[in-house]
Amino acid sequence: MYKDTTIEEINSVMEQAWKAFHLYRKLSLKQRAGFMRAIAFELEECGDTLIQTAMQETNLPEARLRGERARTIYQLDSYALACEKGDWLEARIDTAIPDKNPPKPDIRKMLVPLGPVVVFGASNFPFAYSTAGGDTASAFAAGCPVIVKAHPAHPQTSQIVADAILNAAVKSKMPDGIFAHIHGIANEVGKALVTHTYTKAVGFTGSYAGGKQLFDWANQRKEPIPVFAEMGSVNPVFLLPEKLQSSADEIATMYAGSITLGVGQFCTNPGLIIGIESKALQTFIHDLGKAIQQIVPGTMLHPGIANAFAAKKEESLLQPDVHLVAESAIAPTEKQGQPTIATVDGRTFLSNPVLHKEVFGPYSLVVRCADMEEMIEVAKHLEGQLTSTIMATTADINNNDELVEAVKNICGRFILNSVPTGVEVCLSMHHGGPFPATTDARFTSVGADAIKRFARPIAFQNWPDELLPDELKNANPIGIWRMVNTEPGNTAL
Amino acid sequence: MYKDTTIEEINSVMEQAWKAFHLYRKLSLKQRAGFMRAIAFELEECGDTLIQTAMQETNLPEARLRGERARTIYQLDSYALACEKGDWLEARIDTAIPDKNPPKPDIRKMLVPLGPVVVFGASNFPFAYSTAGGDTASAFAAGCPVIVKAHPAHPQTSQIVADAILNAAVKSKMPDGIFAHIHGIANEVGKALVTHTYTKAVGFTGSYAGGKQLFDWANQRKEPIPVFAEMGSVNPVFLLPEKLQSSADEIATMYAGSITLGVGQFCTNPGLIIGIESKALQTFIHDLGKAIQQIVPGTMLHPGIANAFAAKKEESLLQPDVHLVAESAIAPTEKQGQPTIATVDGRTFLSNPVLHKEVFGPYSLVVRCADMEEMIEVAKHLEGQLTSTIMATTADINNNDELVEAVKNICGRFILNSVPTGVEVCLSMHHGGPFPATTDARFTSVGADAIKRFARPIAFQNWPDELLPDELKNANPIGIWRMVNTEPGNTAL
Repeated sequence: MYKDTTIEEINSVMEQAWKAFHLYRKLSLKQRAGFMRAIAFELEECGDTLIQTAMQETNLPEARLRGERARTIYQLDSYALACEKGDWLEARIDTAIPDKNPPKPDIRKMLVPLGPVVVFGASNFPFAYSTAGGDTASAFAAGCPVIVKAHPAHPQTSQIVADAILNAAVKSKMPDGIFAHIHGIANEVGKALVTHTYTKAVGFTGSYAGGKQLFDWANQRKEPIPVFAEMGSVNPVFLLPEKLQSSADEIATMYAGSITLGVGQFCTNPGLIIGIESKALQTFIHDLGKAIQQIVPGTMLHPGIANAFAAKKEESLLQPDVHLVAESAIAPTEKQGQPTIATVDGRTFLSNPVLHKEVFGPYSLVVRCADMEEMIEVAKHLEGQLTSTIMATTADINNNDELVEAVKNICGRFILNSVPTGVEVCLSMHHGGPFPATTDARFTSVGADAIKRFARPIAFQNWPDELLPDELKNANPIGIWRMVNTEPGNTAL
Repeated sequence: MYKDTTIEEINSVMEQAWKAFHLYRKLSLKQRAGFMRAIAFELEECGDTLIQTAMQETNLPEARLRGERARTIYQLDSYALACEKGDWLEARIDTAIPDKNPPKPDIRKMLVPLGPVVVFGASNFPFAYSTAGGDTASAFAAGCPVIVKAHPAHPQTSQIVADAILNAAVKSKMPDGIFAHIHGIANEVGKALVTHTYTKAVGFTGSYAGGKQLFDWANQRKEPIPVFAEMGSVNPVFLLPEKLQSSADEIATMYAGSITLGVGQFCTNPGLIIGIESKALQTFIHDLGKAIQQIVPGTMLHPGIANAFAAKKEESLLQPDVHLVAESAIAPTEKQGQPTIATVDGRTFLSNPVLHKEVFGPYSLVVRCADMEEMIEVAKHLEGQLTSTIMATTADINNNDELVEAVKNICGRFILNSVPTGVEVCLSMHHGGPFPATTDARFTSVGADAIKRFARPIAFQNWPDELLPDELKNANPIGIWRMVNTEPGNTAL
């Protein structure tokens, strides 16, 4: 339906973005925030058309999509507020000490935008992690133009959102080229975007294969650029003995819901549950299986994802010593994902890397460890994760320090006695994690700290007050928090 | 004199470092700071032996080395203070809102250390950017063990400093493996260190070829890791017309000093001076040449650097339309660097990439642009730089916005009416810059923000107060600044 954008068109788009960059980065924080709020307004204005188009393209239910649009609007508004507040600028001022030997000059530092950012949206979040999603919002806040490559699974949805952004840009009098929307199914389109000289950073949410390819292209450039790729995670859940003993049924119910939420199509879906062989673990597995049988299969995002789920689930179930615990009692159609629980012993799990990989969809593997020592070994052998969860009493935590530390060491978000699904949009959120969960464990893609991904520091040395940016002037005209001679404050010097 | 460390020895060192990591990262900020102060104390205790060994190995004069040791001690002490103050932890707390729909959980975030850090020291700063230099100090502050590969140009100096660190570790009761010192001339030693599974980050100061190789090795790992390589810079200086008109002689004197400071062996040495054809520029070139003739050649760090300087200088002088302006009137010995100024027109400069490369040593090229338009073109065509400098009156700045923005866009530190040599150790310093000046423009290697290079965020969700790290507890027992529900404060909740 949409033709792939040609290389010539991409070159022209990037030229425009580069020109826009030099104008946009000079706009005030207030002007950037105004643009972001205008996008939020236009998204709301898209009304039912947007929701219905997204329903057709993604098979996601109406309520979920309305909720996701509201979340996307909230992201734009809350990052706009954060943009204006300016804490993310990390403004630091050290005033001159002329009589020091040698004299100490006046030095002032703040973050400045990197340049045009290319965003590859996610299939599983057509709004919140796509065209006007978190990557786009944080790049705009940082002062960067954005080029979105539409996800081929929802090109029309992406086009409607792109038009909303362009409307907002016109109404907010943003420079031409501040935003562009690219269609492309061929690999070449993505490669041309990532390797273009004027591209200065990349945001991506999707598969490991996709994200790693972008990362490699970016690092092979003459001038390497940062890639923030979120590439999936099995989000392990560790059941500690005392907690399991007291709450096996409760945990089973909680997790049957989390595993199958949104047909298991969340990057924080719990794909691995690790316990220690015991009667309580048997009860948990039994209860979880029973609960899973009751859950109605849902239609997956697109046939490619449904096929991949079926294939990867089968691959997992065919591994030696993996046993099926339960499947949904209702047979799925071809496009649906059938909720499934399997189990394996700890020794087998440790020796089979296939079982460490994500099965994207409503599938979880329960690992039965012989003892705590084996559970610690499992924790130490897992790759980097977006989240890890521990289900534990206070005594469990205090008695198992080595396990707790090992689990903490592999994840970006560390949850106690809850489920990993549900990613709150707030400053304290860290949605990220050690490789291969993401390509850069030092940055989050959710919460206003995501803005910092698209900026770098610059230090001004020996500039008189009137020539400094407002953010660094003595009078602090925009009233931001700054470190002045290593002490925080939001007043004038 | 020192044998290359074997691969088996490196494996054993990394095992030890990995074990130490799990103990060291649990120590309090105060304990880490105590260790850093103990290193500072031991460095002072090394007394004259250290200075004399360094003088022999680096040819640097005594006063410079005493100053550099004092600076290294200051770095350790000031990063220790920053470590304890905890601003670098970026602590954020968002408290629960149970009656929100869905309920908002309690989430609290802070930075945690990455793991063992491998440091490759610089030849030109045997103390401040080497064994106990900024990379080592900031990794210790972040909670990471450090493995230093001694620079082959000053192995004995490095060994004395390493022994001081090990003494401090014993006296401060640090875990075994917190620090290790590796000798190695072969490439394989560096490769084994960077590609080891337990290595989680790399710090480097040196050549482009060296830094880029480490960066590539690190990105080709199964689990890529961050490399903070500072790889050199020509540090362009732009002479604006009104300023040049009024102060040609003054600027010439200032820059003759800066170009030849420390035999030009600073990473912030000004290797390129850009002006617009005029009588004032002729005066400047003449005065700079005269001043350079008076400067006595100095002995360079080692024969390799002296030979490379002579070869690169010759290569530059042999380029078409490059003209020698002046050399020091005193003939240099083989090991010395002869202060030299050359000049070229803007058009030629723009078309010859050889002239854009650093000539490490006391050599500067004056580029004569036809007009402001050509000067802007030069600014836009330069690669990423540690520093850029503008010599300008207020009117020059206000009348030449496009130039100022272009120059700002390529550098990490932006200096007005001063010289780039001299890197102040303070929080507002940014010693870094766009590629190829460094491999990661988002981080500094000088100032306490350097600590953040070796840490990543982790979010704790739904943890009760008593199980949280002290940094995130309601009572704020260590009194750090935190963002609580998006507002900064250092009080209890």
